[in-house]
Amino acid sequence: MNRHVTPQNIGAAIAALEARFPSSVSTGKSARRLHAGDESHHEPSEPDIVVHPKSTAEVVDVVKIAARNRVPVTPFGAGSGLEGGAIPHRGGISLDTSELSEIFEIRPDDMIARVGAGVRRLDLNQALRDTGLFFPVDPGANASIGGMVSTGASGTNAVRFGVMRENVLGLTVVTAEGKVVKTGSLARKSSSGYDLTRLFVGSEGTLGVVTEVTLRLHPIPDAVSAHAGFETLAGAVNAVTDIKRAGLQIGRVELLDAPLVDVINRRGDMRLEHLPTLFFEFHGAPAEIASLSGTIADIVSENGGRSLEWPANAEESRVLWETRRDCLAWAKAEREGAHSWPTDVCVPISRLAEVVLETREDVARSGIPAYIVGHVGDGNFHCVFMLRPEEEAEVARLSDRIVERALAAGGTASGEHGVGLGKRKFQQQEHGAEAIALMRSLKAALDPHGILNPGKVLPDT
Amino acid sequence: MNRHVTPQNIGAAIAALEARFPSSVSTGKSARRLHAGDESHHEPSEPDIVVHPKSTAEVVDVVKIAARNRVPVTPFGAGSGLEGGAIPHRGGISLDTSELSEIFEIRPDDMIARVGAGVRRLDLNQALRDTGLFFPVDPGANASIGGMVSTGASGTNAVRFGVMRENVLGLTVVTAEGKVVKTGSLARKSSSGYDLTRLFVGSEGTLGVVTEVTLRLHPIPDAVSAHAGFETLAGAVNAVTDIKRAGLQIGRVELLDAPLVDVINRRGDMRLEHLPTLFFEFHGAPAEIASLSGTIADIVSENGGRSLEWPANAEESRVLWETRRDCLAWAKAEREGAHSWPTDVCVPISRLAEVVLETREDVARSGIPAYIVGHVGDGNFHCVFMLRPEEEAEVARLSDRIVERALAAGGTASGEHGVGLGKRKFQQQEHGAEAIALMRSLKAALDPHGILNPGKVLPDT
Repeated sequence: MNRHVTPQNIGAAIAALEARFPSSVSTGKSARRLHAGDESHHEPSEPDIVVHPKSTAEVVDVVKIAARNRVPVTPFGAGSGLEGGAIPHRGGISLDTSELSEIFEIRPDDMIARVGAGVRRLDLNQALRDTGLFFPVDPGANASIGGMVSTGASGTNAVRFGVMRENVLGLTVVTAEGKVVKTGSLARKSSSGYDLTRLFVGSEGTLGVVTEVTLRLHPIPDAVSAHAGFETLAGAVNAVTDIKRAGLQIGRVELLDAPLVDVINRRGDMRLEHLPTLFFEFHGAPAEIASLSGTIADIVSENGGRSLEWPANAEESRVLWETRRDCLAWAKAEREGAHSWPTDVCVPISRLAEVVLETREDVARSGIPAYIVGHVGDGNFHCVFMLRPEEEAEVARLSDRIVERALAAGGTASGEHGVGLGKRKFQQQEHGAEAIALMRSLKAALDPHGILNPGKVLPDT
Repeated sequence: MNRHVTPQNIGAAIAALEARFPSSVSTGKSARRLHAGDESHHEPSEPDIVVHPKSTAEVVDVVKIAARNRVPVTPFGAGSGLEGGAIPHRGGISLDTSELSEIFEIRPDDMIARVGAGVRRLDLNQALRDTGLFFPVDPGANASIGGMVSTGASGTNAVRFGVMRENVLGLTVVTAEGKVVKTGSLARKSSSGYDLTRLFVGSEGTLGVVTEVTLRLHPIPDAVSAHAGFETLAGAVNAVTDIKRAGLQIGRVELLDAPLVDVINRRGDMRLEHLPTLFFEFHGAPAEIASLSGTIADIVSENGGRSLEWPANAEESRVLWETRRDCLAWAKAEREGAHSWPTDVCVPISRLAEVVLETREDVARSGIPAYIVGHVGDGNFHCVFMLRPEEEAEVARLSDRIVERALAAGGTASGEHGVGLGKRKFQQQEHGAEAIALMRSLKAALDPHGILNPGKVLPDT
């Protein structure tokens, strides 16, 4: 175990937590194992103790106990992370946010909700169902809102509604010394003071523990879906670039490569041509969509696309997006003993076709099954490997090459999964030594004893 | 003068700057006077020396000389600020960014531009004219891009295209110790590392000197304008709230109160009914706008609005937006010896009508001419006083009450003008002691000797 704390410290922290939270802590094997890992390929690491605070005040007490004993405290949301951000890499306390599950306030007229960090996004959207509003950020998994803040999540809707950064109005954060900081306001914009909200979004619990989140909501749009196959992967990508360049608004546009289309044809309810395919969603009134879709059909055709296919009804649209959500799990199921390793880079949109094609070729040479899906409107794509344990080293090499290629193209090592454990080693290369030094000075200022999720985001010194 | 540095320090810094930049510094009275103030009501304060660096490397040398001699350095852009952010409040060096004026790169396919901090926004849009793209953030004045980053500017287009925060992809920043930090990438989104970009946006040169900015560009939309008068100010505001709540996309929507409409009728080329009025801009293809405008006309009517009036041609649309841009200057011209004092708050949209009405009543009692304009789609409005010198104290009281009202409604002391000198006293009330303490720790970490634009953003300790 990579422990930086002594057994004495851990023992004292456990005793203090057990005394303070007699019914909300566990040092049992099963609880520790449940909080050791996430959905990523990163090696699990058990915490010494798991605590389930029920309020910001209780989080304060947890952090104060951690601080007093110099013991790591790592927030844990839904466990759906893909880069190991919630893995208690250096032991200590796993701070499970699942009981910070209150929806404090829904303000339909302001299109704002204030929720506990442990609220799951589907539960929030369920609570919003009578308002005509929804929270659009959709990373696929039923993640916790706090986890989505921490990783800077996005997903299929980001091309239309933005990422977490743009949809968080304010936060309640417990600092490393146990103070409660409230950031932001209920106003939709502000130029008042340093932007603490955005400092915490994407910081993965390394600068503070997020306990409450104020979110922007959006009216549920009238949506129509469509899909189109393309002769080439480059044609599919370039069609999206042309759509963006023309200023046309799309609700979602997702790329699925031909191997994934094969999986869908074998396992799903859609029947698609064996071609790289785009799934679209258009928003607006029928006349607006009719106007928009004509132009988009032209752009699709100009890029070697087949005709836009329209689901016959709402049920078929639902199936289309369920297919998108589930197809990677189907792909995994096709290979016995395989687990998945999703990569996640984002590049300038002019370089996307080239980077995707190079990735496709590189991966094909390896012979390891891999599928490319992409939030291509943002330049973000995932090459998802379905690997067996003995292929880990090879996939690690391929994954590194994907990041290197993205960085060389002026892109980023993480589009939406965060840094966690997996992208730390690329931080210096991506941001440069001076930016990393500045990030370290922020970390030192906010968490001088390094108790908050140590060993994440920043590379080792 | 509020000087925190000794004449010896200043003398040494001046000597070093004169030696290093023999042709780019001035200690002459006229240069110092030109850099003493901005367009705000805040009292000017002359720098001891003005320097015009031509590159990031030269900015490094300026900051190092400032650091070595513990002399304040305050960036100065176009001088169009409205809260005193560029006023060298404690003397020292005014770092004029106007020669950081290179447009380094326009990448039409990526819809990205990289420019020097001193580039003016109209010059950038002129350089973009053959690309079909534009940079949408429009605070009215022909501000410098660096100044717009520093104040977190927005303006009429923000309701559609977002504020600076959402349109800055990356920055080059010179730190207080003279290091060059590059933030962000060319990717449209990222979850990689702390969000240094957003930390600097809105920090008004107090955490570092911005020298280069990478911006998101947008396709120039097909736009159609309209306007409508309303029986009541509340009706006008509520129409906008209903439009937002219905998920309808508008390019711009600006409120002008009845007194301002009177000014327009006296001084401008439009003839409007004497009513609170909304100016609209809709984006999209004709069919989309036809569909949208029908629904909007219904909402206008439901809120006591007259029929939507459509300019007969592009020229009339141009006149409409020029009228919006110029009407406050006309109002000022109507009162001899008057200067303007623009307030700038932003509130949750459900509270906007009430806050605007209370402001209108409060102001009417004073008898001092004041006009309300609002970027009402965001909840941001300005009550602009046209005051004579002897009315300063009364306007200061009224201005404070506007902020108090906004904060009580859950809003912010600054929607888009920044904190500068004017909103410092409200920082603690808005953000709370713990958030201010955190901001101070960021300032201390990034600028330990307090040389970067001292006396701005944060309240005095």
